[in-house]
Amino acid sequence: MHPTAPPPSPLSAEVALPSALCVLGLGLIGGSLVRAAGPHLPVFGWSRSEDTRRAAAGDGCDVTDTIQAALTRAAETDALVVLASPVTAFPELLRAIDQVAPTVRLTDVAGVKATVDDEVAALAPQARFIGSHPMAGTAASGWPAGSAELFTGAAWVTCLTEDSAVDDWALVAALALAVGSRVVPADPSAHDAAVARISHLPHLLALALAQVGQAGGSLALSLAASSFADGTRVAGTRPELVRAMCETNREELIGALDDALGLLGVARGSLASTGSLAKITEGGHLARAAFDHRGDGLQPTTLRGDDMVEQLLAVGAAGGHVSGLGRDPDGLAVQAWYPDEL
Amino acid sequence: MHPTAPPPSPLSAEVALPSALCVLGLGLIGGSLVRAAGPHLPVFGWSRSEDTRRAAAGDGCDVTDTIQAALTRAAETDALVVLASPVTAFPELLRAIDQVAPTVRLTDVAGVKATVDDEVAALAPQARFIGSHPMAGTAASGWPAGSAELFTGAAWVTCLTEDSAVDDWALVAALALAVGSRVVPADPSAHDAAVARISHLPHLLALALAQVGQAGGSLALSLAASSFADGTRVAGTRPELVRAMCETNREELIGALDDALGLLGVARGSLASTGSLAKITEGGHLARAAFDHRGDGLQPTTLRGDDMVEQLLAVGAAGGHVSGLGRDPDGLAVQAWYPDEL
Repeated sequence: MHPTAPPPSPLSAEVALPSALCVLGLGLIGGSLVRAAGPHLPVFGWSRSEDTRRAAAGDGCDVTDTIQAALTRAAETDALVVLASPVTAFPELLRAIDQVAPTVRLTDVAGVKATVDDEVAALAPQARFIGSHPMAGTAASGWPAGSAELFTGAAWVTCLTEDSAVDDWALVAALALAVGSRVVPADPSAHDAAVARISHLPHLLALALAQVGQAGGSLALSLAASSFADGTRVAGTRPELVRAMCETNREELIGALDDALGLLGVARGSLASTGSLAKITEGGHLARAAFDHRGDGLQPTTLRGDDMVEQLLAVGAAGGHVSGLGRDPDGLAVQAWYPDEL
Repeated sequence: MHPTAPPPSPLSAEVALPSALCVLGLGLIGGSLVRAAGPHLPVFGWSRSEDTRRAAAGDGCDVTDTIQAALTRAAETDALVVLASPVTAFPELLRAIDQVAPTVRLTDVAGVKATVDDEVAALAPQARFIGSHPMAGTAASGWPAGSAELFTGAAWVTCLTEDSAVDDWALVAALALAVGSRVVPADPSAHDAAVARISHLPHLLALALAQVGQAGGSLALSLAASSFADGTRVAGTRPELVRAMCETNREELIGALDDALGLLGVARGSLASTGSLAKITEGGHLARAAFDHRGDGLQPTTLRGDDMVEQLLAVGAAGGHVSGLGRDPDGLAVQAWYPDEL
């Protein structure tokens, strides 16, 4: 399992958080971020929905009535702006940013990263953007479902490319650390490929399994126990949420699905011809063991130097994460957990 | 969810338990049955393994040294004999039964039922056999893993065909009720078709998902959260156990797997062509809701009459179960939970 306690280090508190946080969209993730970040820095927010704005204000959130007011204030306070609306609203938000606060610091919390990168480059090209994806959520949604603890212990993906400014990344990473997440640096496309396999494909398999079970009729559902309950749990997620995340990651999800269909097709052929399921049972058992032991052998290390983007991406790609940020006389210093064999 | 409390009824305790219980095989299921049944009737057991016999005897279990001694005693005491060894050992046990105690009352706890029916008919044709399958288990195995609580709240399938003697069935059902299970009557082939969908297929999907995730490398495993953890949990089961249950239910599992491959293939085609996952997300969500609401609307009823086998099979096929047994002046009376619309 992932080590969660930061290693002994003088770095953790030395990179300042953003001077303020402006959250656009106050649903489950945005609303949780407002609550979780509140103790650490000035936070204000906006939602398209008047009902949501009223509910958030009633709970003590500093809410602006218009996106223009929010962005004007963000520019004045050098706030980090967070896109926390559904991704379908991103183009409109980005056009507003390009008009009102074109060079603002910007991140987002969407579940797919490469397309957001492209949208920002096209619609708000001067924004100092670092995409991110906190891997946290519940089946519930909306402002009332939010929680200050939602991000505790979760992986918070922060996206980097060769063009990324490390100082912009450090602000987003500092926010993620402040709300209790471990920070996983990743290339946007690598993120999308990974979540297709470990988040989007599990939804499709659960949805199929639920239907095969139901097709067995009342007797089958009556006999279903924990293997079926666990295997179909995420089929309970609202269909529109599943579609929003899976359909926007189409190419990567098709690849992951084809891998699964290939493995199952080989197993089907073997079962029908020789009667053996040796290959899929042994391979799958070993793979699950690899999952159970992910994060084993991570060791604390400190990253310094000019090639910080490359170093950070190497940490994330190796299954490591960032746990602290600081400044040396020479610049940014990053405390990270990294496999000891590398 | 399934109602667990029996309805008010004077029937529950009126059908006697077997006069004694002889458990052949003292692994997880057999060992748990010895522990769970002990407070209710005389129990003795046998295991092929001397180590297991010694461990069970050390825990206070009444253990015989040879299967001949166990079966002789079973015949003398009119005990119900339970085949609780791996199914691969069934032919040898059945030959011993046919020699030593040919007309004994007999049940088994194997996960596949039609083939066991055939084996009993071929090798111990005079045994008064009722196949059964307690839907309970853990990832652990062996005598030390057993627990008197293993069967509490579980579905215990009891098999019936048109040739079954209802009085033999009632003894097995009484035992299952005594150890806390709800009794689900089922045709052996209907059982095998059901468990292919709700138990064996979930294992294959979990095994495939685990491998697709692992193929995403360290980043993917690092980002994997509850949807992947739940979807791959049963891939942690020992491969030989998964093979034993899945390979012996080959035809039914191929059918269930083909259903899953069909649903996933259609989703793959739709995603690739139109980009939509509307069909699988909506169908799967409704199917999971059907699972969540299984057992809703069951009402207590009492079964009586000459067509008891048909009535019992109708209860199981409709998602109902048996919760009590008694005797009327006219014969057996069965308390059951049954959908109110039937």
